[in-house]
Amino acid sequence: MEGKNVIYVGQKPVMSYCLAIMTALKGDVKEVSLMARGRAISKAVDVAEVVRNQFMKELAVKDITIGTETLDTEEGASRNISNIKIVLAKE
Amino acid sequence: MEGKNVIYVGQKPVMSYCLAIMTALKGDVKEVSLMARGRAISKAVDVAEVVRNQFMKELAVKDITIGTETLDTEEGASRNISNIKIVLAKE
Repeated sequence: MEGKNVIYVGQKPVMSYCLAIMTALKGDVKEVSLMARGRAISKAVDVAEVVRNQFMKELAVKDITIGTETLDTEEGASRNISNIKIVLAKE
Repeated sequence: MEGKNVIYVGQKPVMSYCLAIMTALKGDVKEVSLMARGRAISKAVDVAEVVRNQFMKELAVKDITIGTETLDTEEGASRNISNIKIVLAKE
């Protein structure tokens, strides 16, 4: 079950995702990935920081990667959107 | 002169920061850091991706770190704000 936990950050409040991370990391699970794209990227960073600073001090940022996805719009055009993946791991 | 270049991402359009990066990386400079906080974090990721995908394909993401700063508000209270640092380097 290790390393399979992925949480997608979107429109919900920061605390919802903090709770999701803490729930995911119960028991033997040692690692969780936060994924976000577009404007939610800032929120994903907030979530990672709030969890680490306020709730789980033993949590470390293991890896951060950024990338680009191409989305097709309703008009048939395509646009690029940035994404981020933040891997948090228990030490 | 290496590693001293820092570009702060804020309110300007993405392309302004892309141009700043390309200007900073002229000549012998091999590395530039993008810094952003709060909502500008998403824009910093956009800037890094646009520069790498569209203008300087030889540019690599060398390191990404996130953190928290405490700001004092005008009311005398303090609030936390997340930040990001993206280090881009010529290969």
